Amino acid sequence: MESSPLAPAPAPAAVPVPAPALDLTADAAALTAQLVDIPSVSGTEQPLADAVAGALRGLGHLRVDRLGNCVVARTRLGRAERVVLAGHLDTVPIAGNVPSRLDEQGMLWGCGTSDMKSGVAVQLRIAATVPEPNRDITFVFYDNEEVEAEKNGLRRLAAERSEWLAGDFAVVLEPSSGEVEGGCQGTLRMLLHLPGTRAHSARSWMGENAIHAAAPVLARLAAYRPRRPVIDGLEYREGLNAVRIEGGVAGNVIPDACVVTVNYRYAPDLDEERAARHVREVFADCGVAGFTVDDSSPGALPGLGHPAARAFMAAVGGRARPKFGWTDVARFSALGIPAVNYGPGDPDLAHKRDERVAAATVRHCEERLRAWLTAP
Amino acid sequence: MESSPLAPAPAPAAVPVPAPALDLTADAAALTAQLVDIPSVSGTEQPLADAVAGALRGLGHLRVDRLGNCVVARTRLGRAERVVLAGHLDTVPIAGNVPSRLDEQGMLWGCGTSDMKSGVAVQLRIAATVPEPNRDITFVFYDNEEVEAEKNGLRRLAAERSEWLAGDFAVVLEPSSGEVEGGCQGTLRMLLHLPGTRAHSARSWMGENAIHAAAPVLARLAAYRPRRPVIDGLEYREGLNAVRIEGGVAGNVIPDACVVTVNYRYAPDLDEERAARHVREVFADCGVAGFTVDDSSPGALPGLGHPAARAFMAAVGGRARPKFGWTDVARFSALGIPAVNYGPGDPDLAHKRDERVAAATVRHCEERLRAWLTAP
Repeated sequence: MESSPLAPAPAPAAVPVPAPALDLTADAAALTAQLVDIPSVSGTEQPLADAVAGALRGLGHLRVDRLGNCVVARTRLGRAERVVLAGHLDTVPIAGNVPSRLDEQGMLWGCGTSDMKSGVAVQLRIAATVPEPNRDITFVFYDNEEVEAEKNGLRRLAAERSEWLAGDFAVVLEPSSGEVEGGCQGTLRMLLHLPGTRAHSARSWMGENAIHAAAPVLARLAAYRPRRPVIDGLEYREGLNAVRIEGGVAGNVIPDACVVTVNYRYAPDLDEERAARHVREVFADCGVAGFTVDDSSPGALPGLGHPAARAFMAAVGGRARPKFGWTDVARFSALGIPAVNYGPGDPDLAHKRDERVAAATVRHCEERLRAWLTAP
Repeated sequence: MESSPLAPAPAPAAVPVPAPALDLTADAAALTAQLVDIPSVSGTEQPLADAVAGALRGLGHLRVDRLGNCVVARTRLGRAERVVLAGHLDTVPIAGNVPSRLDEQGMLWGCGTSDMKSGVAVQLRIAATVPEPNRDITFVFYDNEEVEAEKNGLRRLAAERSEWLAGDFAVVLEPSSGEVEGGCQGTLRMLLHLPGTRAHSARSWMGENAIHAAAPVLARLAAYRPRRPVIDGLEYREGLNAVRIEGGVAGNVIPDACVVTVNYRYAPDLDEERAARHVREVFADCGVAGFTVDDSSPGALPGLGHPAARAFMAAVGGRARPKFGWTDVARFSALGIPAVNYGPGDPDLAHKRDERVAAATVRHCEERLRAWLTAP
């Protein structure tokens, strides 16, 4: 799931040690435990990537490609459709929660159990047990999802090996509590610059206070009513928030600059340009001297109308929910591939010391995907 | 004058080199040049303090005491009144403007010409030329005025040798363009804490935005109308300003804290407690979760009603002006000694690369003070 700014920095890369071979005949929950026991904090994925690539090559029916610590395995059956099952290999830093531990209630504890080695285990189990799926399948395993976007393995694959990612529909096995989350919202971060004139605060009438000039911006934010548009049957929920404010020169100086950073999370019926235009319009009469785009990532439409998506929904059951946070689903969307999140983990447990996943949920997820990919 | 936060950091203390002896028979402008040519950036005042102490001891009619780089010299004539003439020895860092240079228009250029070696020269000239003044005189020379208050030499004297500072009226020879500036405004810096609840910005409705919560505070500041009270015939001019605002956790987090730092510059009819109460009252209904006093220095009443002050005003002529900025005048006020600023420098030239003073103004200031202290 989206990297958290609250997580501690990843540990420095260690010298890779060969990992034990993975046993893909174990069920998805037992395989999750094997995966958790091969640590793979962002930047140190090599032993796990080696183990995954080795296990997939051993299956014989897949073409396996490698780019750094990304592993892509594909069936080549000439089916009418191709679907992508994607997951990241890395975790946030270990917090005393490795190796994994299965308790008597069937709960598997450990770093990455939820986010998202249980999803990776499901991918590997499908690879191992469905040699002749009804749709061609591309399995994508990538590194560095939990850190800054520049390092993201899926981003690198999209930039350098986009042909490996080709497909009609993608499922990203991020934790979603076994429910389908469709599309995702876009995110735009913009800096609003408020002007002023510096002066000594003992003679404040000689200056113009840039912090005071931010008053209309904050009032506008406080009064803002976000949209809740319905798209493909999913109700999205936008938000426009200040995430940072900075102003001030010294304790006795009227400040000549104040910057408010706003984050607009927008439904996927807007593109990046329209989202930026909306933010400028909201603050049009607030005395903002300049707008700077700090960060922008488009959303992704749910794409639930595609035949492969409809068959997927029928197989997994339930109703799709909208995805509010930005995820790698949007990278597939940018490649023209509709994508959803569907994974066994609980997103609320991701990145937590007491991260865990129910073995039964992992198995259920595996079964639902197998049903989708083997139905006549 | 009050230290400027915009000045570069003082140079590291150098090993002191003995300074040349000062010639107190030179007129005040020529003596200013001698003083400028002995560098004394804050923290490196020892050579100048040595030269000043040596010259004063050589006069014979003064008791000279020393505390670090502070020098205090006193007549002990048993007069009915005692007045204090005070000035600091240090300057802001040199900016290619030492040694001094006298141009053909009688303008003396160099670091400290205005702030405030011309004032120190006037002090030394009075010490040298008025051995039997009509009032006892205490000459105070101190270090570290241009840096943080903790280092201020006058503060140290007040704390450790307050008996040396005893007097009925004080003149601080800070630059005031040869006009009397009475009293000074107080300054209070207070932190206003705005509360919130942290959440991921993709699900902003789960949190409460502390930056948005600052909107009423900034609106109140923008609408604030400061007082302009008249005290002892002087019109003061207050100000209430945000000097810093800080809020934000990360680019994708709804912030749970925002702090607005306000600086209240208040007329000397308020004491510190009433000033703090006023700030709390201004923001009483703005959702502030807590107030923290960050810095507080009381103002100083002009004290122009005292006989020594009236005689001083008559001797120097003109009308007193209020002092808006906080100066060491307030330290005398805190000791129960009414004090004014009166010095030859131009405050607008202080701390500037092209700092300068008119030789004629320095001599005029010297003459006015001599007239006051020698009148029958």
